[in-house]
Amino acid sequence: MKLISIAAIGAISTIAFGATLLEDAKNAGMKPIPKDKKELNKLIDDPKNPMTAAKVELGKKLYFDPRLSKSSLISCNTCHNLGMGGADGVSAAIGHKWTANPHHLNSPTVYNSVLNAVQFWDGRSPHLEDQAQGPIQAGPEMAAPKELVVERVTSIPAYVEEFKKAYGRDVKIDFEKIATTIGVFERTLVTPSRFDEFMNGKDAALSKAEKDGLKTFIDKGCATCHDGIGIGGTMQPFQIANKYKFASTGDFKGDANGMVKAPTLRNIEETAPYFHNGQIWSLQDAIKEMGSVQLGITINDKDAASIETFLKSLTGTKPAITYPILPPSTNTTPKPDAL
Amino acid sequence: MKLISIAAIGAISTIAFGATLLEDAKNAGMKPIPKDKKELNKLIDDPKNPMTAAKVELGKKLYFDPRLSKSSLISCNTCHNLGMGGADGVSAAIGHKWTANPHHLNSPTVYNSVLNAVQFWDGRSPHLEDQAQGPIQAGPEMAAPKELVVERVTSIPAYVEEFKKAYGRDVKIDFEKIATTIGVFERTLVTPSRFDEFMNGKDAALSKAEKDGLKTFIDKGCATCHDGIGIGGTMQPFQIANKYKFASTGDFKGDANGMVKAPTLRNIEETAPYFHNGQIWSLQDAIKEMGSVQLGITINDKDAASIETFLKSLTGTKPAITYPILPPSTNTTPKPDAL
Repeated sequence: MKLISIAAIGAISTIAFGATLLEDAKNAGMKPIPKDKKELNKLIDDPKNPMTAAKVELGKKLYFDPRLSKSSLISCNTCHNLGMGGADGVSAAIGHKWTANPHHLNSPTVYNSVLNAVQFWDGRSPHLEDQAQGPIQAGPEMAAPKELVVERVTSIPAYVEEFKKAYGRDVKIDFEKIATTIGVFERTLVTPSRFDEFMNGKDAALSKAEKDGLKTFIDKGCATCHDGIGIGGTMQPFQIANKYKFASTGDFKGDANGMVKAPTLRNIEETAPYFHNGQIWSLQDAIKEMGSVQLGITINDKDAASIETFLKSLTGTKPAITYPILPPSTNTTPKPDAL
Repeated sequence: MKLISIAAIGAISTIAFGATLLEDAKNAGMKPIPKDKKELNKLIDDPKNPMTAAKVELGKKLYFDPRLSKSSLISCNTCHNLGMGGADGVSAAIGHKWTANPHHLNSPTVYNSVLNAVQFWDGRSPHLEDQAQGPIQAGPEMAAPKELVVERVTSIPAYVEEFKKAYGRDVKIDFEKIATTIGVFERTLVTPSRFDEFMNGKDAALSKAEKDGLKTFIDKGCATCHDGIGIGGTMQPFQIANKYKFASTGDFKGDANGMVKAPTLRNIEETAPYFHNGQIWSLQDAIKEMGSVQLGITINDKDAASIETFLKSLTGTKPAITYPILPPSTNTTPKPDAL
C-alpha cells in the first residue's frame, strides 16, 4: 500500500516515506555520527586526556610502529589495518612468530571502536587506552613486555621529544602513557557514511534499495543489538534462539555471563570474515546466521540481499592518514627478537 | 693549513672550500638527485611504460595490499616499510609463516632503488618491474603463486576499474602487469637530501662537520663503490682486502663472479642492521668493517664518527604517502591461506 501511494504522489511522498523510515530508525535506537564537529569531538574525546594534534600525531606513529612488538615486525596496524577496514581479513588474528589467536578470535575493526561501549569481544576493557595495553603484551600478538616497549621508545630521542611536546617536559614515558597515546589516535578513527547523512536529515543520501534494506533491518529486529551511534558495540546475549553454526571453532564463551560484544556494523563490507571466530565469509550468510542464532527467524535470500544493500551504506569515509615516517632506532634501542 | 686559511679569510673562503670539496666529490663520481623535476623524471621514468598518476596510485595500493601474499598478511611494505627507511629493521627478512630468508639475506631499502644499476643483492634483476615479481612468489616471502595473485586482484571490481583507468579498457591484468604497476610506484620513491642540495651548489646545505665527513669518506676511498646518484647501487667485488667478519652467517656468495651489490647509502641511518646478512647494527662499526674488508685500512673511531656524520646528511625527504584505502574483497576473492 505504501509503495503504491509513493508511486502515485511522487517526490513529496518519497520524502514522507523517508521521514517515516527515519522515525522508525530513531525509534529503533539507531543514531548518526554527529555532523557538527564540536558535538563529534565531545563524543570521541576523553576530557581527562584531551585530544591535541601533538598527541594524535605521536599516537599515529606508535600505532604504525612495529618496534612496539617483541620481534619489531608487528604493529597495531598489522591486525587493525587502516587500509582494510581497520581489520586483517583473516579468520583468527595471527601474531608473534605466526601464532594464531589461541581462542581463534578474529581481529575486530579499530574504526569507530571509540563508539563501542566496551572493548574486546568479551568486553573486558572499558576504553581504548586500556585496550591498547593488551595486544602489545599478549604472547600470541605483539608479545612485548612493558619494559621492552618503554626501552625501545625511550631509546629514540625523536620519540622522547614528541612525548614532551604532547604532554609537557616532565612527562613520564611509561607503558601506560604509550598505550594511552595510541588510544588518543584511535579515537579519531570515526567514519561518517551516507547512513549518517540520512539520519542527519538528508533523505536522498540513501537510495530506494538502501532504504528498503534499512526497513528490513529494523523490521527483522537486527537493530535490537546493532543500534546506537556504533550500530553495535554493546554487550549482548549470544545464541538466544539457536546455536551458532561454528560455535565449536575456538573456546570463546563470552564474558562471565556469556555475553558477547555485538560488533559495530560500520564498514562491515570491508571486514570479512565475520563473527568472533571469523568463520563466515559472506555478508549475506552472516545476516542469515544472525537471523537464526539471535532472532530465531529464517531470513530469506531476498531479505538478506536487501539488508546487505543497506549495510553497504554504512561504509564510511576514512580519515586521510599520511603514512608516518618513524624516527630511526639508535645504538641503544633493544634489538628485534625476531628469529 | 686549509682550515687555517678558511678561518682567516672567512665567508668567501668557506665557499671556496665548499667548491673544492664539491669538485672532489664530483671527481669521486658522486652525483646529486637532480633538482629539476623534468630531469628527475627522465632519470626515474621508464619510457616503455611512462609514469602516470593513475599507475602510481594503483601501484601504491598494490604495494600496501597484503592480499598479494598467500596468507593475505604480508605486503611489499611489510619488509620494505616506507615508515622505516624502506626496510624492516631485522637482520634477515621474515616472510610467509614466519620463515626467515634461507640465505639470511637482509631486506634492502626500496627508497631510491630506482637508482640502483641492478636489483637484489646478487644483481640478478635488471629493474624494479622485474624485481617485484620475485618476493611475491618466493616461498619464504609472500609465497603467492602467480595465478593466485591474479585471481585475488581480478576478483575485486575496484581494482579492475583502476587497471582500466591506468592502461586502457583492453588491459590484460596478468601477474607481470601487477608487478609492473608496483614497479612504477617504486620509481617515485626518491629522497633528495641535504647532500643533494650541496652537490647542486648550495654550499651551506652541509655543516662543517658533515663536509669534513664527506672529505674523509672520499679520502678513505669509500666513494670507489658508493658513487653515482645512488651513492651505491652497483655490483662490486666483495672482501677485496680481508674476509668479512660475519661471512659465515648465511650461504650468500654474490653473483656468478662473486660480486655483491654495494647498497645505496641514502637513508643509511634508518636502515640498520647492515650488510647483506644484517649482522652489524652500528653504523660506525659498519664503516670500520668496510674499511677493513674492502679497503684494507683501519678506520679509527674519529674518522668513523666523521664519516657517520656525513652519511646522516644522506637522510632524505620521503614523498608524502597517503595511506591507501584498499578496495574490499568480494565473495569470489580467494581466501587467505594463513593458518
